[in-house]
Amino acid sequence: MKIGITGTGSYIPAIVTKNEDFLQHEFLATDGASIGNNNAVIIEKFKSITGIAERRYAESELKTSDLGYLAAQRAIEDAGINKEELDYIIFAHNFGDLTPGKIQSDTLPSLATRVKHLLQIKNPKCVAYDVIFGCPGWIEGVIQACAFIKSGMAKKCLVIGGETLSRIVDPHDRDSMIYSDGAGASIIEANASSGEILSHASVTYANEEAYYLFFDKTYNNEGCPDTRYIKMHGRKIYEFACTHVPQAMADCLDESGVSIDEVKKIFIHQANEKMDEAILKRFYRLYKKDVPEDIMPMSIHKLGNSSVATIPTLYDLVLQGELPQHQVKKGDVVIFASVGAGMNINAIVYRC
Amino acid sequence: MKIGITGTGSYIPAIVTKNEDFLQHEFLATDGASIGNNNAVIIEKFKSITGIAERRYAESELKTSDLGYLAAQRAIEDAGINKEELDYIIFAHNFGDLTPGKIQSDTLPSLATRVKHLLQIKNPKCVAYDVIFGCPGWIEGVIQACAFIKSGMAKKCLVIGGETLSRIVDPHDRDSMIYSDGAGASIIEANASSGEILSHASVTYANEEAYYLFFDKTYNNEGCPDTRYIKMHGRKIYEFACTHVPQAMADCLDESGVSIDEVKKIFIHQANEKMDEAILKRFYRLYKKDVPEDIMPMSIHKLGNSSVATIPTLYDLVLQGELPQHQVKKGDVVIFASVGAGMNINAIVYRC
Repeated sequence: MKIGITGTGSYIPAIVTKNEDFLQHEFLATDGASIGNNNAVIIEKFKSITGIAERRYAESELKTSDLGYLAAQRAIEDAGINKEELDYIIFAHNFGDLTPGKIQSDTLPSLATRVKHLLQIKNPKCVAYDVIFGCPGWIEGVIQACAFIKSGMAKKCLVIGGETLSRIVDPHDRDSMIYSDGAGASIIEANASSGEILSHASVTYANEEAYYLFFDKTYNNEGCPDTRYIKMHGRKIYEFACTHVPQAMADCLDESGVSIDEVKKIFIHQANEKMDEAILKRFYRLYKKDVPEDIMPMSIHKLGNSSVATIPTLYDLVLQGELPQHQVKKGDVVIFASVGAGMNINAIVYRC
Repeated sequence: MKIGITGTGSYIPAIVTKNEDFLQHEFLATDGASIGNNNAVIIEKFKSITGIAERRYAESELKTSDLGYLAAQRAIEDAGINKEELDYIIFAHNFGDLTPGKIQSDTLPSLATRVKHLLQIKNPKCVAYDVIFGCPGWIEGVIQACAFIKSGMAKKCLVIGGETLSRIVDPHDRDSMIYSDGAGASIIEANASSGEILSHASVTYANEEAYYLFFDKTYNNEGCPDTRYIKMHGRKIYEFACTHVPQAMADCLDESGVSIDEVKKIFIHQANEKMDEAILKRFYRLYKKDVPEDIMPMSIHKLGNSSVATIPTLYDLVLQGELPQHQVKKGDVVIFASVGAGMNINAIVYRC
């Protein structure tokens, strides 16, 4: 059975936050000590590694579920399906609905239910649930949709990835500049007239890697010790990703039976430009190849890292012609690949 | 393919909180006004409706993921499998890891990853993720495991339901007496030598029902307006459950091809004794039958409502012989059924 992506949509929040907006931030070391460099130097170094020049933050009146709803509306319209025919709404996120300035997340009811409510879907057989799988959550949701379709439990699934990371970052942490907000959505269908998921792979490394991304208090020793933020061991994540993601991608590609030379685009989680480049280099090295030019569309420069939202948003941007140097046409093989908290890695080889 | 439950385990926290422990609580009406009755009267009425005499609260040093780990250990041991053979760890919860006295939940990394970490499972192909589906989360996790097994993606799955609701209830809300803590776990396997999931059904009602369970501030007008707790429209939930759960159970039973007379036990979400009795009465009425004696094992009297944990815990208790008046033997048909935030309903017809 051919299972394909028949519609995509994304919501890119309106608030543009540029690197220079961080010039007045008081960045601190992990122990709360002042950082020697001035912010202009910190920001320049940050940009040279991550590639991020600006990022989007959600409008204060919108929550993660609202971003997901806006992306979902577009995906449903793009697929041209009747929303009442959806068998599943799968919402990947990690922190629930967050309100600016407040620290408690809200997952009662689930974000998938909130989207179903906003879409005004009446059919009770459209089952709505949330999945937490770190940044690779959207890909994992697509893989779960595949399982439901293959096993005969579903024909049409809506898979959303949405997050408002700007509301859960420590302003005293330089890493806060990485994170952004957004949502992407897609419709996954059985017997799609075009498009076919050829293979997929998922892994979870939960030994010493389990807490490479974690929750902890601000670096500001005078800050509230009970309020926690996303924290990461950036160096360890970088090494982990470079070690394990290329092999996971290769395992998935080999399972698909597609030759490396047939791969037209690789949509990789927008976490860090240098890291993504290093992953691709090592991936192609496994096949004794150089990285082809223009193989990797990037949105990180202007959109930052919106976790679960990066890949569906980036894929949607390319399909909508928003990145003119990147085109995919019917029959092209692309790879989706992600890595993040868990530590989880997954990949899909997809014929468009 | 026969997909069965080959092992069960549960963790019942040690702290017993009796109804009389609420005698000194200041219960308030939704608008913050004092409630006329004295607490002894309130508690007696509460007990006569819900059946709850006492409930368990988790030890302060344990979080939801720890409870899940303890239940998972027992389920793995009970199934007699090698933990490294697990293809999935699916953790159903709704509020993440909660720390007593603090309001921020922690889902970074996922609770499934935390369990995998505590179990010291090395195999990266054991994929760990969390699912949010209200109280029916454990049943939904089992259904997802079925999909993975049917579609060839998995052979052995660990499905956990765990929650520490005592840490997210408003002490000024009478409904706080309902909620409790706990975890239940099960191993779901392909080609099980005994046990077979015969059918399953899931629905999500997300129109006017979406916010029957919701997050809101304390009833105490002097309390912190930013700290939110589980709140519910109890009367509406009662009516919703009595209207929709019996039909969902009947749809599932009819799909299984099993006669109503063959059903030996019904393991229903322990939300409220009167509601559960009313659901069963209406379910049997659909078949023009009276409710058989001893069809419904109950744990609510001593364990309260631990959300996702109630059904796997109750099933485990019966299998372990902890409820002597309730026995299930090989070949018996039982029904699992749940209802909760979403509003979600699901059911499984299972041959032991």
